[in-house]
Amino acid sequence: MKDITTKMVLDTWQTAVNRADSLIQKLTDADMLNAVATNRNRGIYLLGHLTAVHDMMLPLLGMGDRLHPEIKSSFIRTPDDTSSQPFTVSVLRKCWTDVNSKLETQINALSSDEWFKKHSSISEEEFEKEPHRNKLNVIINRTNHLSYHTGQMALLKK
Amino acid sequence: MKDITTKMVLDTWQTAVNRADSLIQKLTDADMLNAVATNRNRGIYLLGHLTAVHDMMLPLLGMGDRLHPEIKSSFIRTPDDTSSQPFTVSVLRKCWTDVNSKLETQINALSSDEWFKKHSSISEEEFEKEPHRNKLNVIINRTNHLSYHTGQMALLKK
Repeated sequence: MKDITTKMVLDTWQTAVNRADSLIQKLTDADMLNAVATNRNRGIYLLGHLTAVHDMMLPLLGMGDRLHPEIKSSFIRTPDDTSSQPFTVSVLRKCWTDVNSKLETQINALSSDEWFKKHSSISEEEFEKEPHRNKLNVIINRTNHLSYHTGQMALLKK
Repeated sequence: MKDITTKMVLDTWQTAVNRADSLIQKLTDADMLNAVATNRNRGIYLLGHLTAVHDMMLPLLGMGDRLHPEIKSSFIRTPDDTSSQPFTVSVLRKCWTDVNSKLETQINALSSDEWFKKHSSISEEEFEKEPHRNKLNVIINRTNHLSYHTGQMALLKK
């Protein structure tokens, strides 16, 4: 039985994923090739960025390897490049679904205590001083990251 | 002493407020009169909207009356209206600062147990069935709401 705050945090994550997914399904591939605002990232870039960030959550949370390591270099710390198009919207949609589906299964399977253990990017020494840098905190931060970019992608809707 | 998850949730809220505030301070009054994307809400509208939503958190969390009830009708469930301008950017900046400052003080003063009590928009009967609809959950939801619109306002930066 998860404590109530853990449940609230995990439910909010899943609601944010579902909301983003519903928006992404409504946007056409053509919509995704538009920029969210003049001279800003395109929908395809934000889809790739969110997918790569979520994929990296798997090893960060000790939930196994990334499913799509091939997309990282195009979408993390690399600006949107309209001149090259290494992945199609259709391929990225599939990666997005794969990654969130694996995350959902793994998140549901994690025991309550595990959420308060350290994630994989912090040392034991650091974690002793900063025990809030646990797995549940990764979920809180990534939920807000997702909301931030969902607000931008919502601007693509006609 | 707050439990670690409550602290994580409240810290994430304050970080999101500080990040939005820093962005709002960087945007000029002229930037704020631009739409975040073609035919979408202007910065001034999102500033008013966030301020009104945060102001409504005060009574919702049992932290007293709203500070600026006069702004609600223009920014909640009312679309951005470029033909009328009931409030200047400068007035809204002041309201934004007032409201977040009062919220910060009240949030810091709330005892740990209080976060798990019901907020004011739910009945005792409903709360008995859905105990996650507590004050801390309001903070989780409003943090994501703020992140969503911060992502949009970030598009106003030159």
